[in-house]
Amino acid sequence: MPADAKLLLGGRWCASLDAAGAFRAEDPTRAEPIGPAFPISGAADLEAALAAASSVAVELAATPPARIADFLERYATAIEEETDTLVALAAEETALPAEPRLRSVELPRTSGQLRQAARAVRDYAWTEPVIDTATGLRAHRAPLVKPVLVFGPNNFPFAFNAIAGSDFASAIAARNPVIAKAHPSHPATSRRLAELAHKALHDAGLPAASVQMLYHFDNALGVALAGDARLGAIGFTGSRAGGLALKVAADVAGVPMYAELSSVNPVFLLPGALAERAESLAQEFFASCTMGSGQFCTNPGIVVVAQGEAGDTFVATATKQFASATPRPLFSRGVQENLARAVRDLVDAGAGVLAGGSKGDGQGYRFEPTLLHVDAATFLAHREALQAEAFGPVSLLVSGGDETTMVAIAEAFEGNLTATLYRAADGSDDALWQAVAPPLRKRVGRLIANRMPTGVAVSPAMNHGGPYPATGHPGFTAVGMPTAIHRFAALHSYDNVPDALLPPELRDRNPGPVQRRIDGRWTDADVGVSR
Amino acid sequence: MPADAKLLLGGRWCASLDAAGAFRAEDPTRAEPIGPAFPISGAADLEAALAAASSVAVELAATPPARIADFLERYATAIEEETDTLVALAAEETALPAEPRLRSVELPRTSGQLRQAARAVRDYAWTEPVIDTATGLRAHRAPLVKPVLVFGPNNFPFAFNAIAGSDFASAIAARNPVIAKAHPSHPATSRRLAELAHKALHDAGLPAASVQMLYHFDNALGVALAGDARLGAIGFTGSRAGGLALKVAADVAGVPMYAELSSVNPVFLLPGALAERAESLAQEFFASCTMGSGQFCTNPGIVVVAQGEAGDTFVATATKQFASATPRPLFSRGVQENLARAVRDLVDAGAGVLAGGSKGDGQGYRFEPTLLHVDAATFLAHREALQAEAFGPVSLLVSGGDETTMVAIAEAFEGNLTATLYRAADGSDDALWQAVAPPLRKRVGRLIANRMPTGVAVSPAMNHGGPYPATGHPGFTAVGMPTAIHRFAALHSYDNVPDALLPPELRDRNPGPVQRRIDGRWTDADVGVSR
Repeated sequence: MPADAKLLLGGRWCASLDAAGAFRAEDPTRAEPIGPAFPISGAADLEAALAAASSVAVELAATPPARIADFLERYATAIEEETDTLVALAAEETALPAEPRLRSVELPRTSGQLRQAARAVRDYAWTEPVIDTATGLRAHRAPLVKPVLVFGPNNFPFAFNAIAGSDFASAIAARNPVIAKAHPSHPATSRRLAELAHKALHDAGLPAASVQMLYHFDNALGVALAGDARLGAIGFTGSRAGGLALKVAADVAGVPMYAELSSVNPVFLLPGALAERAESLAQEFFASCTMGSGQFCTNPGIVVVAQGEAGDTFVATATKQFASATPRPLFSRGVQENLARAVRDLVDAGAGVLAGGSKGDGQGYRFEPTLLHVDAATFLAHREALQAEAFGPVSLLVSGGDETTMVAIAEAFEGNLTATLYRAADGSDDALWQAVAPPLRKRVGRLIANRMPTGVAVSPAMNHGGPYPATGHPGFTAVGMPTAIHRFAALHSYDNVPDALLPPELRDRNPGPVQRRIDGRWTDADVGVSR
Repeated sequence: MPADAKLLLGGRWCASLDAAGAFRAEDPTRAEPIGPAFPISGAADLEAALAAASSVAVELAATPPARIADFLERYATAIEEETDTLVALAAEETALPAEPRLRSVELPRTSGQLRQAARAVRDYAWTEPVIDTATGLRAHRAPLVKPVLVFGPNNFPFAFNAIAGSDFASAIAARNPVIAKAHPSHPATSRRLAELAHKALHDAGLPAASVQMLYHFDNALGVALAGDARLGAIGFTGSRAGGLALKVAADVAGVPMYAELSSVNPVFLLPGALAERAESLAQEFFASCTMGSGQFCTNPGIVVVAQGEAGDTFVATATKQFASATPRPLFSRGVQENLARAVRDLVDAGAGVLAGGSKGDGQGYRFEPTLLHVDAATFLAHREALQAEAFGPVSLLVSGGDETTMVAIAEAFEGNLTATLYRAADGSDDALWQAVAPPLRKRVGRLIANRMPTGVAVSPAMNHGGPYPATGHPGFTAVGMPTAIHRFAALHSYDNVPDALLPPELRDRNPGPVQRRIDGRWTDADVGVSR
């Protein structure tokens, strides 16, 4: 099969230099190939992308922030104007609902994220200028002046797309060139986005090779690329096995890799909350677990249910919901097969099936919404196997028990993106909260009360991150502006450098109103103005 | 040789559980053993330390900040009160000058650093609270709730000591237990510091195992410990080979390691600066290169000299200074041997000897202040070998050439802690600065004008860090409060959590005057107060 589609390489659309093959997207609802053939890149494409990105890194780093922001805003507008086409492409390639998910939630989130990044560029918020007049030292966050490689996941064709999502926006905001590795499950969506990015880049006057995109390449080539010291950093969202293989290579080369790996996002239902509203909690949980066919990194994969009558009601209600649900399509045969294997492994480790558990008999790549359960003792005895992620509409209920057991369960989790506790409005769960929350707190990036973990707001106070192995570093978030930009920045200190030779945001005269920490106080005044 | 000295383990002074041997410090001026025998720890000591630290991590993380600050301040005061003893011990073990270096510079810097850490704890500056009222999300930096392992270097018996330096102060400020691995070249100094820390810990009422210290252990045991996922992070200052071996193990376990490795700190002398004051620059350079026998991570290891008459004057003056200098003691036989090998390697790679070059005939571990030179073409042809660090009073002069050559030299450097440019006061070098500074800027943590790189101020705008391989991550500094504390912190987001269940600095009511970013604006107001 010859590859019809072109790559965005070195600032122009061109045929693959050394395609190792070609692939097509699939319609997951029918398991049928759709759209054109896209190239699987060989080593020459990767080298060309890296060389081209490296060659513009200095120029991009020296580009005035206003022009970077202009690009991000033009791109956001282009995405919004192209909503119909993008939603149609993504719906076909991913089988995600066009409405509300793609059109009303994910697409506006994506353009909004680009605009938030643009704002952080315009007001220099991500650079966090620090001025110490006593020592003559001034510091800020600055571009890496090296390319950033972004691997996009299968589950967000817009908001985490390697060419449009948070990693992309963050790396560009920090004025680094991006080499985007699109996810092969939605190549046509990615191509359309890349076309919009390319045009916006041209219109904003940024270096042409600042944004490049490849569709697919062999894992071994990816590992070799990740270990190339010409890279400034890597953003990765995807499977744990794939991410860790890349991370080993990146670590050896000294390339910081921000990997968002697996997470089961434990949810604890405390007894008071269950007593107040067991049935509505079951509905909330079912909706969160099965939305988007459960293909979220923040899917509630494990729910610890306080024992008692209300807990039984919760389990019964949830079981009924899962049992009567229609299997919705998954992204691909790979997701379906991994999910079937993961459910089998959970059952082998001691979980019982309350509802679902198999592929069902629908067309395409589907899996029944599946509810599993296990008692606390079994969970604690087989904690490793029973907290393996099952990516899809699957959740494991764990029977809670007394406070000691709840705490032991909390302590059994490895690093996760989120943990959630549902507590009673009357405060009756708060003593238990004080016991269970601390062991969860240290294991997760975001601690949630009375909300399901799905739904990741693009907020400066978001942490879409967490301790290893949820991500590769506990100090960074993949979502939220300006914080997500920090991943793709270096700390630069200037020592005794004359005002005229400093970057604008470190000069005596405030170039904005930029908030800067001068002698320990945040202010938007000029240096030397009494505060 | 039985080990007389005790370890600080699990909150008390005790004999090694499984000493694999013992060692004594040496007087570097005589190459003679001094002081008592200290244990070389076996695996049981390391396991005991890790278990004890892990067991208090939760309690320490929950300790009120005021008590943490109280410990840091008590410890700082104790160090100051013990100045005479500490300076005498350190002078004997390291042969560093008691005055001014140890007594008037390094010791006050060490206690001052502890006090700055205490201040950042009291005013919550290191936690950087962010509050987003629109989404109900609040975030801050928080303890890792896991032990931090600190490896101290040989070259700062106080200010980078594993039990008293910046890594120690930073990790404790973030409320993490510390396992200090003292450097075996100054064990008695480290022991006295640990005694003071232990008493301050007791007086402040912190968990006893919050601070522990081992003197020495086999490299293989260190690598095994670095790869233990029970660790929260590692702070390391030392050799590149040792650091990278630990980093490989830490990376696989997902343990962030902040390694400060080698650096040659290139200095560029631009023609206008040389024309203004070639002789005084030579004196400044000589003093910086030979101070403390050149045993600084920020030693000016390579100096690029613009060609011309003034450059010749600089070279001649510097050569004269180096040639007439007395060899001062180094820390150890290992430093002396590594230095001799490094100089040999530089000569083998094409460098010529202008002055010094051998051990000389003095007593103890000495090396002649050594000045090497090489032309630009040779440097560029053998850039790897010629930028290897020679730890000691050794520097390589590189003949500059035209702007293109200067830029090519700048582009030949790998990641470093610092780069320095000397420019003319009349601005005549500034066009050249604009060409040479950008390639240096992206390669270093701190860019300096008209100051030698030695002398690292403890300032919030300091960056004692830099791109790999100067350190393991370009976004963090090892020196400077509150920024150095960020290395040992996790990002914690709270989502919809009721006010009473939030940490103090994230509640509506400001607990200090704490500076917080509320809805995008830094303020010390309460939430809900119009700003």
